[in-house]
Amino acid sequence: MRTVHIGLAGFGTVGSAVFRNLQSNAELLARRCGMRPEIVAIAAKNLSSRAGGAERAAARLLVRDLDVLVADSRVELIVELIGGCGVARRLILSSLRAGKPVVTANKALLAEHGREIFIESRRHGAPVWFEASVAGGIPLIQALREGLVANRFRLLYGIVNGTCNYILSRMTLEGAGFEEALREAQAQGFAEADPTFDIDGYDAAHKATVLASLVAGGCVNFRKVPVEGIRHITVEDIRFAQRLGYALKLLAIIRSLGPNHVEVRVHPTLIPVTNRLASIHGVTNAVMVRGSVVGDVEFSGPGAGGDATSSAVISDLMEAARHVVLQKERVKGAPLPQPPSAVGSVASRVAPAESIVSRYYLRLGVLDRPGVLARIASILGAAKIGISSVLQPEGHEGRVVPLILMTHDARHGAMLGALARIRRLPVVKSRPVVLRVETFES
Amino acid sequence: MRTVHIGLAGFGTVGSAVFRNLQSNAELLARRCGMRPEIVAIAAKNLSSRAGGAERAAARLLVRDLDVLVADSRVELIVELIGGCGVARRLILSSLRAGKPVVTANKALLAEHGREIFIESRRHGAPVWFEASVAGGIPLIQALREGLVANRFRLLYGIVNGTCNYILSRMTLEGAGFEEALREAQAQGFAEADPTFDIDGYDAAHKATVLASLVAGGCVNFRKVPVEGIRHITVEDIRFAQRLGYALKLLAIIRSLGPNHVEVRVHPTLIPVTNRLASIHGVTNAVMVRGSVVGDVEFSGPGAGGDATSSAVISDLMEAARHVVLQKERVKGAPLPQPPSAVGSVASRVAPAESIVSRYYLRLGVLDRPGVLARIASILGAAKIGISSVLQPEGHEGRVVPLILMTHDARHGAMLGALARIRRLPVVKSRPVVLRVETFES
Repeated sequence: MRTVHIGLAGFGTVGSAVFRNLQSNAELLARRCGMRPEIVAIAAKNLSSRAGGAERAAARLLVRDLDVLVADSRVELIVELIGGCGVARRLILSSLRAGKPVVTANKALLAEHGREIFIESRRHGAPVWFEASVAGGIPLIQALREGLVANRFRLLYGIVNGTCNYILSRMTLEGAGFEEALREAQAQGFAEADPTFDIDGYDAAHKATVLASLVAGGCVNFRKVPVEGIRHITVEDIRFAQRLGYALKLLAIIRSLGPNHVEVRVHPTLIPVTNRLASIHGVTNAVMVRGSVVGDVEFSGPGAGGDATSSAVISDLMEAARHVVLQKERVKGAPLPQPPSAVGSVASRVAPAESIVSRYYLRLGVLDRPGVLARIASILGAAKIGISSVLQPEGHEGRVVPLILMTHDARHGAMLGALARIRRLPVVKSRPVVLRVETFES
Repeated sequence: MRTVHIGLAGFGTVGSAVFRNLQSNAELLARRCGMRPEIVAIAAKNLSSRAGGAERAAARLLVRDLDVLVADSRVELIVELIGGCGVARRLILSSLRAGKPVVTANKALLAEHGREIFIESRRHGAPVWFEASVAGGIPLIQALREGLVANRFRLLYGIVNGTCNYILSRMTLEGAGFEEALREAQAQGFAEADPTFDIDGYDAAHKATVLASLVAGGCVNFRKVPVEGIRHITVEDIRFAQRLGYALKLLAIIRSLGPNHVEVRVHPTLIPVTNRLASIHGVTNAVMVRGSVVGDVEFSGPGAGGDATSSAVISDLMEAARHVVLQKERVKGAPLPQPPSAVGSVASRVAPAESIVSRYYLRLGVLDRPGVLARIASILGAAKIGISSVLQPEGHEGRVVPLILMTHDARHGAMLGALARIRRLPVVKSRPVVLRVETFES
């Protein structure tokens, strides 16, 4: 049986889980795939100083640096689990230039430098697999590239950041405040000491960028993706949303607007409580895809964690190993068919934030006084924004009370203009809370 | 760009959808996969007499019979969408013997003759793809074979028959009786004029057999799979289940018991209302897989219909086309790696029905009289079956009233023995209703 020799870069939570699960399932994988995957070299910081069993076994495979890893003539494919856009980028590019396929879990790199990587991949005939970059252990990327290859993707939306979903779940189910829920997430190991990257939506936006590139069939520029995090979410707004029949989730939302043209955004979103994503709690991820042929298909499962992510890395790695075997035993000169619907190296257009149409939830702090609603409604009306419902908890005349408005579809640009005018009204006493509402019916 | 030539057998709902969607997405598929799939020959009954646009285009490709289809030297792979175990079996076997890969949606054939087919497939190096055989458009089979290849599958359960799920949903949500819900399903086109095959659980059992073969890593014998349908389900039992916190679903349940050893069954099952499958309504299919590395992953989507099923067939067909291209352009003699974790040709052992352990829901019609519960409890106690809760709606002494018992884990054999004794009690006035209860916690 053919052995495929792997170079592993990075030995953190995911890297060590890949090493461990590859060893413990070696026979199973050999039987299932007819090949033996073997890690023959590892590049990692501080590995030799660690104490665990896997670390000791791995330390024997340690090479000096990433250049040695790529240059190692035994290494047939590279697994990049370093993360970030620095050394990881250089490693992947040099691996592709050496004609060695790459498996990576690096969403940040794919989102910010995907086009450069896919161009280099195509040029050197060395594919890149990235199942673990989005939604952890859920085999979503393969579904989009292969299982649903017959479909144009009209709509994709999902919960792709477990930290935010954990925090919003605690706030929804237990009434915890944002800061309290964040501290719990940190105590449980679901949030970093510096949680900025997760709670401000950047991690979800990286994943949305990768998914949008697949939906659009061409690379999406991460810097064009509108992002809003969950730092400003209050239990009060979650409760008002519930009274109106909605749950609040941080969603990545992607709509196809045509070939290589896509709307993509990440923001807290009110969705009907009957939507299946409304009942995805905790760190679980879930993604709904609307295909032109198949209809709506939904995936859910663990979105993070060493083991779950290693499941995705190992499946990519076996696919890459198969590619290596096919490549080596092939007639000279014949190009090996690439895996289907890779992102491609063209750039996709991204709809500007102002042009995006959705429904809105507005919460205003207003003086409880006759005529207030009329003034606000007339500003919205002038901007051609229709009101679908109003919720005004009973208050005391003359006091500041919350006024909740749900609108019909409105362009984001028109909503921003109307909000600027509303904020200048003397009866409006606090910065309005503005949240998007999606029903995903069309 | 390389064109791959396909022979299509069968032109019913799925066959015509495959033909239509392949034509309308030809450019998309070519761009994504770097190959052009082209149907060059079709074998189908009565095709030439039909009137639609796709039928007229297809009629020009009509060949005389299945033998001509396989023998056609242009045909590089066969798509079998005839169904059943007669001519479909002969077609697939002769195609494999001619070294031509096969794509099929035929769960009945795989369940009843899978081993014969996989042995022949291996012998001739011609793979069989069968994504469309289970859960329609959901890319589940590929996930089990490839995306989750790093995992042993400990548990798999799912709603895999849309007809039954539609009927049970109507009964649950609207209180329709079984006959009424069945007639509605027939009126909506979700049930056949003769619904036996669906409502008695055989279709679900065929799918369970295919899934169990993947879980076990070896062929499961369909005739060993215990099957129970939904014909005897009443709204009364659904309501009692709801009062106890459960929903009723027809489930396929598969547990791994070790290498090539598996527990597999299909029956109506009470599951906690909090389980995500409890809120899968209508004709939607959903499957939960528990992997040893990844944890719990769930898939849901359309389980039937021409378009949804054609999405799965086309993805298989593109994978098979890639195989054909790789095979033809390959160094002579080198065996082409098979797609991972194909079922294999070994037989798997199936746990006998009597040995299966689960919790139970029992509804007895008993005379409302002191001491009745004690007598029943003592029979269950003697069989070492513990009672976890009792529900007895208020009745009138001397009348026949329902008595609902929920038990702890019990072997099916022990339960059957206890039930035989309970039925002989003079105070038990009707045939007990016996339903399995699963929480899937371990």
